[in-house]
Amino acid sequence: MGTPEAAGPPEGSPYSLMSDEQIRAWYAYMKVQLRLRYEMNRQLQADSGLSLPDYDVLVALTSEPSGSMRIAALATRLGWERSRTSHHVRRMQTRSLLETSTAADDRRATDVRLTPAGWEALRAATPPHVELVKSIFLDALDGTDLEQLAGIMDRVYERLIANGTLPRPNDHP
Amino acid sequence: MGTPEAAGPPEGSPYSLMSDEQIRAWYAYMKVQLRLRYEMNRQLQADSGLSLPDYDVLVALTSEPSGSMRIAALATRLGWERSRTSHHVRRMQTRSLLETSTAADDRRATDVRLTPAGWEALRAATPPHVELVKSIFLDALDGTDLEQLAGIMDRVYERLIANGTLPRPNDHP
Repeated sequence: MGTPEAAGPPEGSPYSLMSDEQIRAWYAYMKVQLRLRYEMNRQLQADSGLSLPDYDVLVALTSEPSGSMRIAALATRLGWERSRTSHHVRRMQTRSLLETSTAADDRRATDVRLTPAGWEALRAATPPHVELVKSIFLDALDGTDLEQLAGIMDRVYERLIANGTLPRPNDHP
Repeated sequence: MGTPEAAGPPEGSPYSLMSDEQIRAWYAYMKVQLRLRYEMNRQLQADSGLSLPDYDVLVALTSEPSGSMRIAALATRLGWERSRTSHHVRRMQTRSLLETSTAADDRRATDVRLTPAGWEALRAATPPHVELVKSIFLDALDGTDLEQLAGIMDRVYERLIANGTLPRPNDHP
């Protein structure tokens, strides 16, 4: 497993409380996750002047055909604290990528939507972003791998919904 | 696929530039990744007063038997910008979880290591963290799933190393 020291992970390491097959899967998952976020953020900043969180917000909003969503629904979809979401939306609003308004049917709620400039930034950023995602992730996997990964992640996601604290968001790309 | 609109993802969405099987795998991966980080951060804050990045730093340092690492090696391992790493280490240092020193063999380099309080914080935080990780992720997967996931993530990681910008870190949990 490219792994330990004969002695195994030290007390205090999360790996000291997992089986060998759990260690192998969790470590492989975690190291991809950390580097993937780094590389995606680096490429977006360099090519498009967007951070990965900026891009995540823009993409989340496209999941509604209107490009508009309650700010609470956006937070749920991104898995962000509500306060972080509001703060990030305000910053993107000052860059004219988003606009907000009081919800028509609930004056305590805020709707957030892509502006034309937000759509344009997203359309420009997406091709090089997807090229990177293919070159560092998807192209490593054949059809069987993709199907297995989707099935495994779907099973994990159901666990996350069942045993986690966040509600289920609208659920399509 | 629990997915789209008959019309499919709009122009600008990354999913508009992927095959159906790529969409399914990437969307399943991304939605787990976002929620998993949220739930892990929430549990660590609530039970142990540590953020997920704090915990990631502590665990990364345990991968060296000495509990000590060059700050540059820590940044590489975590996939963090060097400046973010230095800033985060300083904040953890003021909480006495870490200590730093000039490297014995390179006076321009900084070593960072776990203090006894850092080890203690890690030992106390790990059991409830691992309990959460099992309940929202690992327990969803049988032996075959774990093996497939490890294999898939290993193949992706090799792509990340080959086509990404970061060097390969020391590579064991």
